[in-house]
Amino acid sequence: MILTEVEAIAHKLAKTQKEISVAEFFERNKHILGFGNPTRALLTSVKEGIDNGLDACEEAGILPDLYVEINNHDDGECTLIIEDNGPGIIKNQIPHIFGRLLYGSRFHAIRQSRGQQGIGISAVVLYSQLTTGKHSKIISKIQEDRPAVVIELAIDTNKNRAEVIKRDIQHWDKQSGTRVELSIIADYTRGKRFVYDYLQSTSIVNPHVQITFKEPNGTVHEFARSSEVLPAKSVEVKPHPQGIELGTLIKIAKNTKSRKLSSFLKTEFSSMGDRTTKAVCEKAELDLALDPKKMSREQFLTLHRAFKKIKIMAPSTECLSPIGETLIKRSLKHQTQEISPEFIYTSARPASVYSGSPFQIEVGIVYGGNLPKDKNVRLLRFANRVPLLYQQGDCVTTTSISSIDWRRYGFDQPSGKGMPSGPAIFFVNISSTLIPFTSESKEAVADIPEIESEIKLAFRECARKVQGHIHKEVKRKKTREKFDLITKILPEIAKKSSDMLGKPVPLLDPVITKIMDVVWIEDLIECEKASKKPVQSTLFEESSDHKENGWITKSTILVVNYKNNPQKFNLYAVIPEEAVVGAVTPKPSKISSRFIKWNLDAIDPADKIDISFELAGLEKGDFDENDLYIEHINASYVIGADKWEGE
Amino acid sequence: MILTEVEAIAHKLAKTQKEISVAEFFERNKHILGFGNPTRALLTSVKEGIDNGLDACEEAGILPDLYVEINNHDDGECTLIIEDNGPGIIKNQIPHIFGRLLYGSRFHAIRQSRGQQGIGISAVVLYSQLTTGKHSKIISKIQEDRPAVVIELAIDTNKNRAEVIKRDIQHWDKQSGTRVELSIIADYTRGKRFVYDYLQSTSIVNPHVQITFKEPNGTVHEFARSSEVLPAKSVEVKPHPQGIELGTLIKIAKNTKSRKLSSFLKTEFSSMGDRTTKAVCEKAELDLALDPKKMSREQFLTLHRAFKKIKIMAPSTECLSPIGETLIKRSLKHQTQEISPEFIYTSARPASVYSGSPFQIEVGIVYGGNLPKDKNVRLLRFANRVPLLYQQGDCVTTTSISSIDWRRYGFDQPSGKGMPSGPAIFFVNISSTLIPFTSESKEAVADIPEIESEIKLAFRECARKVQGHIHKEVKRKKTREKFDLITKILPEIAKKSSDMLGKPVPLLDPVITKIMDVVWIEDLIECEKASKKPVQSTLFEESSDHKENGWITKSTILVVNYKNNPQKFNLYAVIPEEAVVGAVTPKPSKISSRFIKWNLDAIDPADKIDISFELAGLEKGDFDENDLYIEHINASYVIGADKWEGE
Repeated sequence: MILTEVEAIAHKLAKTQKEISVAEFFERNKHILGFGNPTRALLTSVKEGIDNGLDACEEAGILPDLYVEINNHDDGECTLIIEDNGPGIIKNQIPHIFGRLLYGSRFHAIRQSRGQQGIGISAVVLYSQLTTGKHSKIISKIQEDRPAVVIELAIDTNKNRAEVIKRDIQHWDKQSGTRVELSIIADYTRGKRFVYDYLQSTSIVNPHVQITFKEPNGTVHEFARSSEVLPAKSVEVKPHPQGIELGTLIKIAKNTKSRKLSSFLKTEFSSMGDRTTKAVCEKAELDLALDPKKMSREQFLTLHRAFKKIKIMAPSTECLSPIGETLIKRSLKHQTQEISPEFIYTSARPASVYSGSPFQIEVGIVYGGNLPKDKNVRLLRFANRVPLLYQQGDCVTTTSISSIDWRRYGFDQPSGKGMPSGPAIFFVNISSTLIPFTSESKEAVADIPEIESEIKLAFRECARKVQGHIHKEVKRKKTREKFDLITKILPEIAKKSSDMLGKPVPLLDPVITKIMDVVWIEDLIECEKASKKPVQSTLFEESSDHKENGWITKSTILVVNYKNNPQKFNLYAVIPEEAVVGAVTPKPSKISSRFIKWNLDAIDPADKIDISFELAGLEKGDFDENDLYIEHINASYVIGADKWEGE
Repeated sequence: MILTEVEAIAHKLAKTQKEISVAEFFERNKHILGFGNPTRALLTSVKEGIDNGLDACEEAGILPDLYVEINNHDDGECTLIIEDNGPGIIKNQIPHIFGRLLYGSRFHAIRQSRGQQGIGISAVVLYSQLTTGKHSKIISKIQEDRPAVVIELAIDTNKNRAEVIKRDIQHWDKQSGTRVELSIIADYTRGKRFVYDYLQSTSIVNPHVQITFKEPNGTVHEFARSSEVLPAKSVEVKPHPQGIELGTLIKIAKNTKSRKLSSFLKTEFSSMGDRTTKAVCEKAELDLALDPKKMSREQFLTLHRAFKKIKIMAPSTECLSPIGETLIKRSLKHQTQEISPEFIYTSARPASVYSGSPFQIEVGIVYGGNLPKDKNVRLLRFANRVPLLYQQGDCVTTTSISSIDWRRYGFDQPSGKGMPSGPAIFFVNISSTLIPFTSESKEAVADIPEIESEIKLAFRECARKVQGHIHKEVKRKKTREKFDLITKILPEIAKKSSDMLGKPVPLLDPVITKIMDVVWIEDLIECEKASKKPVQSTLFEESSDHKENGWITKSTILVVNYKNNPQKFNLYAVIPEEAVVGAVTPKPSKISSRFIKWNLDAIDPADKIDISFELAGLEKGDFDENDLYIEHINASYVIGADKWEGE
């Protein structure tokens, strides 16, 4: 009978149902981890090692000093050594960290770090044993006066546990650190370019990092440290209520120690002060004294809806560690050394939230110079300071950029969609406590609507600056042509007329002023090696992290009043946050970390005023264009500065 | 002291190290599973449900009859019902299959199926509880005369185990089957188009499937079954030695029951017969009697290398279930109904292997008609008969197509790279026992070199056909112009000359023949409803799966000898494999499943011959262009057919 047949099938199918170990899953799906082909496998392996090393050092407050060595053999096998000077790993933890997938310290913490998944380095060990059948060797030292621990291990993929093959100790001439040695099948010839690009980009946006890279032929590349200061350590925070999933809210309530809704909201979430907590509960019509463990799904649902209706403060950014404007500019400069671009603009958005996770977008645009005009713009992508080199096509950065109509900003873009073409390089960095990568290979970021929206806002802002710059340049050029014409031709006419009439040449300044009818601001930036004596901030006592013999950037501004009446206004020069302000003339009325402000006394018609300031603590070229603003004067009277819109 | 500090950090870090449950991992990384935004979440949920249902039915040999119902509510919540008529699931297995990630029957089997990961449907349950806090309800029936089991469950993400909330039984008016009811946060308005496209495409390439889709507004779409025959069931096979990873080889040896290398190779791998086994071991210089469990890594390495050096038979294709030429054409026709394309070509590669997993590529190109000439070609992607709708940018299909220089085949493609533009739709299907998706969301396939290479070969072959067609059309058009000229003008000249000379009009045929100097083949295809009496194959006794009142495709071929001497040659007409051959005149010399062959007797100069054949078992339009080949005649003498290159 057919029924018993079907029933028999159901039972037969049941017998084949089996648990799948996570190691076994990834062993068979190694491409998901970024080991799909031998070229990519090389980069993925180096990347996981480096990211791990950097995270360990930064968590321990140690300036990272990393060493990478690759040796390749005839049969496509590469030996990989990655070494850090981090705090080391205690010996009982080594088998878990290197021999088990989905094990780690950063998954459960809401705080920006490179590793988040607890998969990375053990995936490399897995790939190594899968492709070469060899064990991985881990050396770790946690105390200077004691020997290092040496462990050789494999992964039992059926159990997702390490199989320790050998334990030993050895002398290691290092205070502390971790060293991984393993063999993988990889394509060094094709892959080396990616490894080099990755290390270089990493070093640029992580100037506190020192990386030594030894190639198979013995060539050693040093990516030197250019800052002795670790980036501010990102702090672990509570989830933000905005966009948190209902299920997550219920799960947190299940595990909370709070007995009242009010304390539950205040202790388990960030940005929830007394006032907000009260407002949310009022909106949800829930008693502040409710026991969160006894709340029904419907009560959580009303609470969840109230989160969306009440304005909750943006998340604290202390859990994030964005790259910062200066480093972005420096990175872009480096990428465009031989191109001499016209200008570089950057834009950073305030922190925002998706599904309860804070994130922040920084973008930059390099424009002009020798960049090709008829090709798609190049895109440089970073996530938590880690360069992303693959899978650009389906990254949220690409989809966001593609959905902007770039024709409005002077780029070519057939049908107003897709990657624009033009002489530009685009830069984008996503910082988040949880980067929503599309897969465990961490190469592309998912198209989360909140992130897409922020990237678009950031690029639009940056594009407007580009547009503004072009606009300002055009305006200034036109005015200068007029000015040149007047200052050359007018005196000649005057002289000829005077000669003909036998009268003395009249004073032309008032005439010129009348015709020009603007306040003219011109500026110049020069950069020179600092003298032996370090520059002292005249106004600030801040400790600066610039090297004693670094660069001094000197900015000179000339303001000429070509209007008919005296002009009195305020001038602002925007400066990078990292800069240390040196000599400033005339005396400014205010120096903040973002700008210098002068209250300019009435300048008489045809009179001019010289302004200058010096900045230290910057690399050469970090500050190569003044960003000037004016206040208390009609902006349309002024050439060379824009209206000050407030801080 | 700094050292104890570092040591303290190492210990502190160790304490935060923790195991991460796979459910917890995906709960936090739901975008990896295809739930990154509410639009996509809708499609992913429907897709996982449908794929599961189809797999279950096909495994049990049941013609699938699926039902999908979506209801959407004001707050962005959608209720989803997916029901199949499969064999049902025995009650003890329900909590595991729906409430546990990485659990399933298809992961460990080397055989083509839609689900492979043991993640899909439990991921939907996870997403449901995460976004709505609700339980999922599963109804399953495995025996007609007994009630169905009803289970409500949630997932304990910390443990990756189901939490059964309620067990019950109920009457269900169905022989057997499974029904899932759950709620998700999803964007129905934006997502419905994707769901519809997915269901439609699925139904086209799976003609044995019946799907009923009920929209929230009550509209019911029926995607009707058009074939009563299940696709050949894919058979479970052993791994193929080609490209297998060394680590996998060692792992198989660890678990084998064979005590000798020879039997190990023959029982654990496919395509390893006596001869190949011997050749491999000879090459590796390994004794056939070696115990595989006692072999060293080095011995496995030489064995692994020998696999690459010995020619091993291509993998058996019985584990695969490709779509087939006719269904691809039908799918493409459907997509281009209103476009009336000039032609559709398809190409299928033989089965190949990557990392020990067999795979096979089928491609198709639709060209011309009203397709836009200035846009990128549209790409339709399938994997194991499942349409892929997202992440096209980083799919191996895109990278493969982009790396072909399409300018050679008459497409536009700036700089010879990237997606070409032109009036075309490209189709590609990858069949494999293990589709290497780039992530668990199963939307893009990784850039495995072997797969990339096969896709390129398939598309090149197809592109050559396109090129050949255009070439043939041009040649035929030119000859026809010449022919028209001669048959019109020559008689007129002859008549006028005869009139003037008062002589009778000469016989012109030999003259025309002399000028034309070709064998002319012309053909016509007509399609008509079959008469009530079913067409009987005159030559084959094959049971046909065409409907009794289906379509009869009639092909008429006219061969005219415009050469000076009699021509004797063979003519081949290629037919679709699914076709059932009806009346054929004149009597063919051979009918195979792929072609009909005629040995044409000497045709005298200016003589002609009429050929015709009928095909049943096809849908209207499945066969709309004859593919004719000639043998034993110089192909350059013939217009309208190509040289027969053998089967």
